Amino acid sequence: MTEIATALPYARPVEWPDVDLVDTDVHITPRSIESLFPYLPARWRDYVRESGIESLESDLYPPGSPLSAIPGSRPAAGPPGSDPDLLRTQLLDPWHTRIAITHCIYGVDGIHNPDWAVAMARAVNDWQHAEWLAGEPRLRGSVVVASQDPERAAAEIDRIGDRPEFVQVLMPVRARAPLGSRSYWPIYEAAQRHGLAIGVYAGGAGGNPITPVGAPSYYLEEYVLVAQVFQAQLVSLVSEGVLVRFPDLRIVLVEGGFTWLPPLMWRFDKNWKGLRREVPWVDRLPSEIIRDSVRLTAQPLDEPDEPERLLEVIDRLGSDRMLMFSTDYPHRQFDDPARSAPIGLAGEAMTRFLGRNALDTYRLGE
Amino acid sequence: MTEIATALPYARPVEWPDVDLVDTDVHITPRSIESLFPYLPARWRDYVRESGIESLESDLYPPGSPLSAIPGSRPAAGPPGSDPDLLRTQLLDPWHTRIAITHCIYGVDGIHNPDWAVAMARAVNDWQHAEWLAGEPRLRGSVVVASQDPERAAAEIDRIGDRPEFVQVLMPVRARAPLGSRSYWPIYEAAQRHGLAIGVYAGGAGGNPITPVGAPSYYLEEYVLVAQVFQAQLVSLVSEGVLVRFPDLRIVLVEGGFTWLPPLMWRFDKNWKGLRREVPWVDRLPSEIIRDSVRLTAQPLDEPDEPERLLEVIDRLGSDRMLMFSTDYPHRQFDDPARSAPIGLAGEAMTRFLGRNALDTYRLGE
Repeated sequence: MTEIATALPYARPVEWPDVDLVDTDVHITPRSIESLFPYLPARWRDYVRESGIESLESDLYPPGSPLSAIPGSRPAAGPPGSDPDLLRTQLLDPWHTRIAITHCIYGVDGIHNPDWAVAMARAVNDWQHAEWLAGEPRLRGSVVVASQDPERAAAEIDRIGDRPEFVQVLMPVRARAPLGSRSYWPIYEAAQRHGLAIGVYAGGAGGNPITPVGAPSYYLEEYVLVAQVFQAQLVSLVSEGVLVRFPDLRIVLVEGGFTWLPPLMWRFDKNWKGLRREVPWVDRLPSEIIRDSVRLTAQPLDEPDEPERLLEVIDRLGSDRMLMFSTDYPHRQFDDPARSAPIGLAGEAMTRFLGRNALDTYRLGE
Repeated sequence: MTEIATALPYARPVEWPDVDLVDTDVHITPRSIESLFPYLPARWRDYVRESGIESLESDLYPPGSPLSAIPGSRPAAGPPGSDPDLLRTQLLDPWHTRIAITHCIYGVDGIHNPDWAVAMARAVNDWQHAEWLAGEPRLRGSVVVASQDPERAAAEIDRIGDRPEFVQVLMPVRARAPLGSRSYWPIYEAAQRHGLAIGVYAGGAGGNPITPVGAPSYYLEEYVLVAQVFQAQLVSLVSEGVLVRFPDLRIVLVEGGFTWLPPLMWRFDKNWKGLRREVPWVDRLPSEIIRDSVRLTAQPLDEPDEPERLLEVIDRLGSDRMLMFSTDYPHRQFDDPARSAPIGLAGEAMTRFLGRNALDTYRLGE
C-alpha cells in the first residue's frame, strides 16, 4: 500500500518544509446510504428504502466518472473517500499530515422535507464521529446541520458541538438566502457557544440560479462564477453584522478561491464609507472585519500565469493569517503537489499557510 | 456661468496633460416625460397621459434627492442632466472635452409591455438625436433598444445605426437573461453591422435578485455587488462565444469597476483550460478575448488605500487599451477631480486612458 501511495501524483513534494501540516479540505463519504442506517431512526430508514433512494451525493461528483476523483483513490467497495484506511495510506501518511479537517455534506442541504433533513444531518454526524473521527486522532470533523430549520440546526450543534472531534459547522454557499440573514443567527450563536468555526462550502441547493441574471448555459460558467457566490455571501455576512455580533466566530470559505478578495475589500471599504449610516453595526472597515474573522482554503488555486503575481495577491490580503493549505482529497481538482502552495511562499508565511493558520482558526492549540 | 462652472468641485485639474479628452459616461435625461411626446405615436402619448405616468426614471437617482447629483448641476427647470447649456458650461468647456458619450436609458428596460418599450426606445433615440446630438458636435449618443423584443431592437439599430452621432447600443447589466444568450444575438449582429459598440450599463430591471442567493437587505450590498453582475455577464458573453462570433463587436462595461478583472481572468483562463471541450467556439484564452473586445469606463474607481496598487491592477489587465476616462456627470459619484484618473498613470498610458482608447473603441478616428 505504501508503494502505491508514494507512486500517486499527489504525494507530498520532498522539498517541503518540515512543519505541522494541516489539511483543511478532505472529503469523506459513506460507502452507501445504508452505511447511515445504524444512525437513522426507523421511520427514515423505511422512508429511504421505500422511496428507492440510492444516494444523496451531489451530481457534481458522480461517483462513476473517472474524472471526478484522483486515480487510485477508489477503494474496492464504495466511492472515493469512503475508506479510512485508504485515506491514511494515500494522504495522511505520505503527506505527514498532523490534522485533516473532513467534510461530508451528503446532500443534506438539498432535502426539502425539513424533518428528514434534520434526521439525515444527525445521522451523518453520528456516522462520521463513530466511523472516522473517533478512530483516527489526525482527523477533525465538520458538523452537518439542516439550515432549512435553524432552530433545530442549533439544537444539533448543542448536542455534539462540545465533542473535541468537531471543529466547525458547515453551511452551503448556495444557501436558500444570504448567509447574513437573521434566520441563520441561531446557528451562528450556537457555533460561537461551542467554539466552532463556520465552514462555507462550494455547494448547496438553495434554488436560485448561480448568476444574478438567470441560469448560464455551461458548466464552465458555473465553475467560474461560484467565486461570485462566495463574494455575495461574504458581503452579506459583513453587512448584516454577523461578524460583529458574534465576534468569536470564524468563517472559513472552502474552495472559493481568494484572488478576488483584495479588489472586493477595496470596493466594499469605499462604499461602506459612503453608506455606513445604513448599517451602523458595521463599526469598522469591512476589510478589517474580514481580516479578523474570515479564513480561506487555498485549493483550487486561481493561478495567474506568472506565479509571482499570486504572491502579490497574498500581500494585498493584508494579513498572513487568512490562507490555509488544503488538498481537496480525493477530488481531481487537487492533482499537482507543486501547485498545492503558492510558489515562492516561504518562511513564516509558508509555515502559517501550511498549518499554523488552521491550528489557530480551529483552536487546535499546540 | 463660466465662473460658476470653474468654482464647481469637478473642474478639470490644472495639472492635467493637454490631450484629447473623451468622457465616456455622461448622463442626459428629458426635462419631463412630455419632452418625449413629439417623438411618440399618439397611441402611446394617450397611454402615458391616461395612466398618469409622470416619469420612468430609475428610483436609484431620485431627482429630488440632494445626494444624487453634483451640487449646482440642477437647471432652473427639470432634473440634473436635462439642460444642454448647463452641460456645456459645467462639463464640456471647463474640462476641454473633445467628445462626450451620452447615456439616456429612461427606464425603457423596465417596461413589461414590449410594444410600449419599443415605442419609448424609439422616442428616446429621436429625442436625444434632435435635442442633444445634432446641435453639439462634441456629443456622441447611445442607441436605446427594447431588449425585451430582440428582433425589433435590431430593427431600431438598423433604422438609426448609420447616423454618425450614435456610437453604441445600450444593454442593461441586470438584463432578463445572461447577455450571451442566443436570444440577444440579433442585437449584436445589428450593432456589428453598423459599427456600433455595445455599452453595458449598471442598471436594469430584469427581475432577478442581485445576488445568486436571493435579495440582500441593504443598498450597500446592492452597490458593492453590481460588480458581480458585470462579471457574470462578461463570463456569459465569452462562454457563449458572442465575442468570437461577432469579432468586430466591442463591449463597453460602464460603471462596473475594473479591479475585479485580473483575478476573474486568471480563474476563467484556468477553468477554460479544463473545460474548453464544452465551449469549442471559445477558441483562445478568455483573457485574450476579453483584452481584444472589452473596454471599461473607470468611474467610480474601486480605490485601494495605497494608490500605487491601482497601477498594479492596471498592469495586471495586460493591456493599456481597456480603461477609459469617464466623469459620470452629473451623478454625485463623480465628486473629486483628483480621483478621476488613477494616481500615477503617466505618459502614453495616461494619453490612452484619457482619450485615445475611447477614440479607438468608438471608431472616432483622428
